Amino acid sequence: MPMREVALSTGDRVVLYDTSGPRTDPAVSVDVRVGLPRSRTVWIAERDAGDAGAAGGSAGARPAGGGVGVSGATTQLGLARRGLISPEMEFVAVREGVPAETVRAEIAAGRAVLPVNRNHPESEPMIIGREFLVKINANIGNSAVASSIEEEVDKMVWATRWGADTVMDLSTGRDIHRTREWIIRNSPVPVGTVPIYQALEKVDGKAVDLTWEVYRDTVIEQCEQGVDYMTVHAGVLLRHVPLTARRRTGIVSRGGAILAAWCLAHHEENFLYTHFAELCEILRAYDVTFSLGDGLRPGSIADANDAAQLAELATLGELTSLAWEHDVQVMIEGPGHVPMNKIKENVELQRELCHDAPFYTLGPLTTDVAPGYDHITSAIGAAMIGWFGTAMLCYVTPKEHLGLPDREDVKAGVIAYKIAAHAADLAKGHPGAQAWDDALSDARFDFRWNDQFHLSLDPETAASYHDETLPAAPARSAHFCSMCGPHFCSMKITRDVREYAAVRGIGDELALAEGMREKSAEFVSGGNHIYLPLADV
Amino acid sequence: MPMREVALSTGDRVVLYDTSGPRTDPAVSVDVRVGLPRSRTVWIAERDAGDAGAAGGSAGARPAGGGVGVSGATTQLGLARRGLISPEMEFVAVREGVPAETVRAEIAAGRAVLPVNRNHPESEPMIIGREFLVKINANIGNSAVASSIEEEVDKMVWATRWGADTVMDLSTGRDIHRTREWIIRNSPVPVGTVPIYQALEKVDGKAVDLTWEVYRDTVIEQCEQGVDYMTVHAGVLLRHVPLTARRRTGIVSRGGAILAAWCLAHHEENFLYTHFAELCEILRAYDVTFSLGDGLRPGSIADANDAAQLAELATLGELTSLAWEHDVQVMIEGPGHVPMNKIKENVELQRELCHDAPFYTLGPLTTDVAPGYDHITSAIGAAMIGWFGTAMLCYVTPKEHLGLPDREDVKAGVIAYKIAAHAADLAKGHPGAQAWDDALSDARFDFRWNDQFHLSLDPETAASYHDETLPAAPARSAHFCSMCGPHFCSMKITRDVREYAAVRGIGDELALAEGMREKSAEFVSGGNHIYLPLADV
Repeated sequence: MPMREVALSTGDRVVLYDTSGPRTDPAVSVDVRVGLPRSRTVWIAERDAGDAGAAGGSAGARPAGGGVGVSGATTQLGLARRGLISPEMEFVAVREGVPAETVRAEIAAGRAVLPVNRNHPESEPMIIGREFLVKINANIGNSAVASSIEEEVDKMVWATRWGADTVMDLSTGRDIHRTREWIIRNSPVPVGTVPIYQALEKVDGKAVDLTWEVYRDTVIEQCEQGVDYMTVHAGVLLRHVPLTARRRTGIVSRGGAILAAWCLAHHEENFLYTHFAELCEILRAYDVTFSLGDGLRPGSIADANDAAQLAELATLGELTSLAWEHDVQVMIEGPGHVPMNKIKENVELQRELCHDAPFYTLGPLTTDVAPGYDHITSAIGAAMIGWFGTAMLCYVTPKEHLGLPDREDVKAGVIAYKIAAHAADLAKGHPGAQAWDDALSDARFDFRWNDQFHLSLDPETAASYHDETLPAAPARSAHFCSMCGPHFCSMKITRDVREYAAVRGIGDELALAEGMREKSAEFVSGGNHIYLPLADV
Repeated sequence: MPMREVALSTGDRVVLYDTSGPRTDPAVSVDVRVGLPRSRTVWIAERDAGDAGAAGGSAGARPAGGGVGVSGATTQLGLARRGLISPEMEFVAVREGVPAETVRAEIAAGRAVLPVNRNHPESEPMIIGREFLVKINANIGNSAVASSIEEEVDKMVWATRWGADTVMDLSTGRDIHRTREWIIRNSPVPVGTVPIYQALEKVDGKAVDLTWEVYRDTVIEQCEQGVDYMTVHAGVLLRHVPLTARRRTGIVSRGGAILAAWCLAHHEENFLYTHFAELCEILRAYDVTFSLGDGLRPGSIADANDAAQLAELATLGELTSLAWEHDVQVMIEGPGHVPMNKIKENVELQRELCHDAPFYTLGPLTTDVAPGYDHITSAIGAAMIGWFGTAMLCYVTPKEHLGLPDREDVKAGVIAYKIAAHAADLAKGHPGAQAWDDALSDARFDFRWNDQFHLSLDPETAASYHDETLPAAPARSAHFCSMCGPHFCSMKITRDVREYAAVRGIGDELALAEGMREKSAEFVSGGNHIYLPLADV
């Protein structure tokens, strides 16, 4: 079970959720050219044996095509609906600290997804749903003008080291297939893609030349490789396109723009919409999860929650029901750019229109004015939308709108989003979330500097910031810090207060403390010059 | 009038609020040893002439002491209550783009403060209140173990350049008086202090040796220098101290800890509370604003909104009324560490208990687990609490809990808080707030890269991030960016969509677009395979 155990100097141990896979286990060495151990292979084989003869039964096989039934048990959703608890469900139950039945029930109801392509046996199962820890996704991927395969694999390893729960490979340049293969074979977390990007490459970047057949073959190719979830912009309908023409920033989703251009050029309905049932059959055979894309998401504060966005959202709700009929897992992508006062409405509309399918949002950015800092403008929105019930937050890096993220940007984005997700877990009152904060606050209050660093989201940065001002080794155990200096420390004074109080016998009267809040008003109205002997408190 | 005008390549001009003072005007050169021009001197002199003979009438004079009346018009609050609009009020009205009468009425009601010590004529008047733009404060100041005077003045100049609306000098080390003098003479923004820090230095750091007299003389010294607002921890009462003993992180405010220690050591009530009326008379004479300190603010998520914090808040409400009786302006300091779900309650309690006096909060941090990134953990809370009505946000830098901020940390903190404040202005629907986002989004959509950079909170960073991936000069005017590359750009495709739509005559039908949202449900229920000719849209 992937967990990070932090051994404190007090002898206590704190266990934290961990996404980094076997690579951060000192006992394991991984050859990037071979990939990670395929730990799920045995579960998949056992399931295949049980389902012998059923559609999609053998790993690596193409789907039968057209002949796949809609009530089978191949997918986690199918299993859950039949009341079965898969090994993957057991795994995430332990990982989240909840009963396996909760996992099954949430998946069966469509309120959570467990994205596990049968051809990605290297992944460690995880769950995305509002009843569980809020997850984050890191986008990686090369483009026509920058980066290489090695860099992208390194970014994936790096992103999961800092806490990315899934990665999306958004490559658009050369070597898309090979880049993805390397990423999947090395990824301990689910991998998502946007197949339309590769399909577009196959038609030399000309949106008008796209066909259902090219797209379908691309999806099958990616299913075969082991992609766990796919963004499909099937909600961009011909009739929605004119709703964007008067927007301040039109269509900013690449997928959305491609399909809008295709619809207009052909005067036909989006082929992803018209062929959606066929797509369901393909994804079902591999247990690939739909991430229904928001191709018409707002690209600016001005366009938030507008008619185009909401029309598409209603269509995504319709498609959710259709996918569920095929036992295919679904999550719904969301914006983008939204001012704080419109975030809650977004989540409520998504829940209502999409039947409580998990929401997966990009940010949202809460202002447009800070390019270079959009990990922060969007962490604000992400924390809030997470609190309101969004299940997974797609990170935004400092390079958003400006360039492709490098290694440091990936880390900055992941850390900002781990903060947002954890702040949301705290606000939601997720059981166990606060134990982490409590352990760190205790270490801080006790001047256990090394414990504080080890419990931090980014121990290296925390330690280096501390050492910058007080570099000497003894300062790591000093009962003061550089903010106040050795003779003037509020934490130290508080400890003195406690000791003093103990000596004076205040300890016994502490039970009265809770009652003091009510008494406060009496005191206030009693006059300005109150003297109250401690014995009376 | 201090404004930043951004000239766009389209010929349009965007005017932004500016806090940097004369230094960023190329026509002005400032000698740091001389300080800024004393532009308010004439207003103060004219007012003195009108008030001839009234208490506190001559600049630089000590208050009469004891003989000052409580209904005079020396302060902005006094003037506002008498129905008078001061030049400072006119100034902020233009600066905020609101009627001067609004400014006067908000000050008169105590809902806003205009912190202007008569001995800080270098400052450019600004207002802090929920009806106005959300403001931010940057803390600077040396400590016993780090930094110098020059560094601190440089940090102040640097902080105001990036948008700090006020600075607080929290120096605790050597040369406190001289550091402050340099900062005030060079500061275009109001300067705040925490006088107890200097008072403590005067008694060699021994809290038990503090006296009202030492404190009072320190306050007068600082009033004379021109400090515009002072944090006074008069709400830390003897009876509140036991409420902190069972906290996870006790008392984390330095001032709060000092006064708690003093109260316990002497078995007496906080001398700031018992002498509060005298303090009012001193502050009134200079028009210094109270920033009533939250000495018992929570230092961890676990301690948020607890009995100690709320008991102190009730006392601050009592003191607010007392200060107002003396025509002294008041704002209320707030936490600290608060999970998102408890932020709104904080603001509501503050409004209720403190009679709508402006709230001024430190963050709050929304989780404890990310030391090294507390500008982000707290920007989330700051944006939310600003939206809920907090008037000023005290920044937190990446070094919080770990060390003293350097120049880069000050910038990181200020930018994160400008983001939070502006996101709050947008969410509150502040008139004019969205024009900035709209201008930047327009530039982005039109590929006017340089306009986008110039409109950014941090133009240098935005431009350098862009140039990193696409360094060639022509890329600054390219109609694509490094995220998608030249042949695959969603913004470009959207423009094609618009042009296509225009050619096909969709433009005429756009009036129907708004009606499409309602129609969407009909379409959805009509079947899965809808073909809709564009002419019908």
